Amino acid sequence: MEIMFSERIERLAPSPVREILKAATGGGVVSLAGGLPAEETFPALENLPGGWCQYGLTEGDPAIRAAIGRHLEERGLSCPPERILVTSGSQQGIDLAAKLFVDKGTPVLCESPTYMAALQVLRLFGADLKELPIGATGPVPESIDPCVAEARPRMAYVIPTYQNPTGCVWSEEARAALAQAADKYGTPVLEDDPYGEIGFGPKVPRPVCARLRRAPWIFLGSFSKSFVPGLRMGFLAASEELFVNIERLKQAADLHSCRLSQALVLDDLNDPRRPARLDAVRAEYKRRRDAFDVSIHKHFPKAEFVAPEGGLFYWARLSPERDLREIAAAALAAGVAFLPGEHCYAGKPEHGWARLNFSHASPEDADRALGILARVMDGI
Amino acid sequence: MEIMFSERIERLAPSPVREILKAATGGGVVSLAGGLPAEETFPALENLPGGWCQYGLTEGDPAIRAAIGRHLEERGLSCPPERILVTSGSQQGIDLAAKLFVDKGTPVLCESPTYMAALQVLRLFGADLKELPIGATGPVPESIDPCVAEARPRMAYVIPTYQNPTGCVWSEEARAALAQAADKYGTPVLEDDPYGEIGFGPKVPRPVCARLRRAPWIFLGSFSKSFVPGLRMGFLAASEELFVNIERLKQAADLHSCRLSQALVLDDLNDPRRPARLDAVRAEYKRRRDAFDVSIHKHFPKAEFVAPEGGLFYWARLSPERDLREIAAAALAAGVAFLPGEHCYAGKPEHGWARLNFSHASPEDADRALGILARVMDGI
Repeated sequence: MEIMFSERIERLAPSPVREILKAATGGGVVSLAGGLPAEETFPALENLPGGWCQYGLTEGDPAIRAAIGRHLEERGLSCPPERILVTSGSQQGIDLAAKLFVDKGTPVLCESPTYMAALQVLRLFGADLKELPIGATGPVPESIDPCVAEARPRMAYVIPTYQNPTGCVWSEEARAALAQAADKYGTPVLEDDPYGEIGFGPKVPRPVCARLRRAPWIFLGSFSKSFVPGLRMGFLAASEELFVNIERLKQAADLHSCRLSQALVLDDLNDPRRPARLDAVRAEYKRRRDAFDVSIHKHFPKAEFVAPEGGLFYWARLSPERDLREIAAAALAAGVAFLPGEHCYAGKPEHGWARLNFSHASPEDADRALGILARVMDGI
Repeated sequence: MEIMFSERIERLAPSPVREILKAATGGGVVSLAGGLPAEETFPALENLPGGWCQYGLTEGDPAIRAAIGRHLEERGLSCPPERILVTSGSQQGIDLAAKLFVDKGTPVLCESPTYMAALQVLRLFGADLKELPIGATGPVPESIDPCVAEARPRMAYVIPTYQNPTGCVWSEEARAALAQAADKYGTPVLEDDPYGEIGFGPKVPRPVCARLRRAPWIFLGSFSKSFVPGLRMGFLAASEELFVNIERLKQAADLHSCRLSQALVLDDLNDPRRPARLDAVRAEYKRRRDAFDVSIHKHFPKAEFVAPEGGLFYWARLSPERDLREIAAAALAAGVAFLPGEHCYAGKPEHGWARLNFSHASPEDADRALGILARVMDGI
């Protein structure tokens, strides 16, 4: 299958230093090739895990790549460590994928609505965005093949699990249908999974990427929700035909990601207490979700929404006729910030939807904020 | 003065969430807008500086931006903290600048030779590279205006202080001439300064960016050589008309840089022992440079080179006729890795130059490696 990379990939040369350094790791070689500082010059930083001060490998340290491989296996996706790359947050994975595939005018399929910051990156690189409408269980399975057939995208960007902004989980059938269409038309799939570990409903179906037989794929994960966002740690796993170019793009972007963050994430992945810790995180978010559910029913009795089974957001249609972008400023002046759903559409938006975060504010603050928002909307 | 941004900048929209969140920081606002995890879910990470776990600001934490501003003032460049952005290594600054200015065919001026990984990024984005030849004190001052007049670059990428790969320091006159030409033709200057603090010769002249009167500019700095490379911490300072777009590009690239790394770099910048620590680093590198100088004279008595007064590299013409790329594999097989200088030219390379790192290998290993390299070159 021929992959249509972006035009810039033709100009993506391997770094000779990198190739030389790779070859030089065999032992017995003195390297005068790189620009490594002397380890003796590094300051003593107390109480931190050792051995992470020097420049590292572009793709990430071997131990964390192996640990991420095991972590993915548990999520239902098999990928050898050699095709896992540590990223500076999963946002960087979107940037790398856009560099890999998107030129001006390149058709890219995305959900409608979708993650706003992905729209920002895809538009920046000039994508011609094609929308796949989704509902409470993802797209209608039968709609997928015709949509891919018509759009003939060079990449399909999807968030099948606890989708942003809707919180929906794609059904088994929808996942299977996308995998089938991607295989049929040779469409690379970019599957974004930042919330995979933040679920409090039934176990979610396997990733779309795990179902592909021939289409190229990139799967993005994050440790921002399950561990510590300030560390900016994410990762990607990719099919073989994409990996070398992604690795080179990563090198050009920032050489490699913070090794101290890698060391801390690795410690956590290997910590036998991690499952219990994540259970507690999920329980706390479920508690907040449940409280938010009560509040939103109370303050917006006519709103349309489904309680999310994971992730951090409610997606609620507060008022079908209204463009909520026009309400955001008044709400802010009254003390409530929210995201007007109109910003989450690549094309013409459906009006009246709001993306409401339930994970950060306390249940009391969230209740108060929803009350204010309801009054602001009544008053305008 | 009209700035010619890349075509993609027309499509660089501000993030509505970010604008809402910025407005929401006034206090008294409950934010349901972002996707922040609850602070209560963060694991206790012992012995680390506190308060850096949550998502942070795209441009960097205010305290480190202020500290970098003071640091730049000492380097002779005045820039308010509002126009300083923390980057994931200074390599990311090159990526951001390329996104800002470079489309396919965009003329970009660079030194000949120059930093190989910058060539990689600029080529990736399609730059039409124009070369400015440099010698032991940078370019011939009189050559600069005609070169800029002819190339009419949309950006000039330069490393005037301990240049990579040559180690040269641009003279006062060369810096003044570039500043004058940039002002005259409105050429944005991208000044890369990763080695500014690693000097062991006389005090270097002020940055080119500090001499500009009207041309836009970006100045890149790094904490990889002066502190810890594994933290991937760099920064950029920029003129006012560029900053907003750079900040948006940074947000699209990785939201923000690792906050733990920022906290550690901030601690170091504020540490009263920092100047003494850097004196010791410089003394160690000078010791290695001096030892390397003895070794290279011994093993390559006919080579052409100037002992560098800073940075991490010797630039030595080991054999004027030879393409050293053809020797690299044999050298590696014999136990020595080095960078053939041919890789550092945007256009037709001068043959016979090698970039030799003197900072990492011990003086004994470096001496042995140079001896091996000399024998390999004699034997081929």
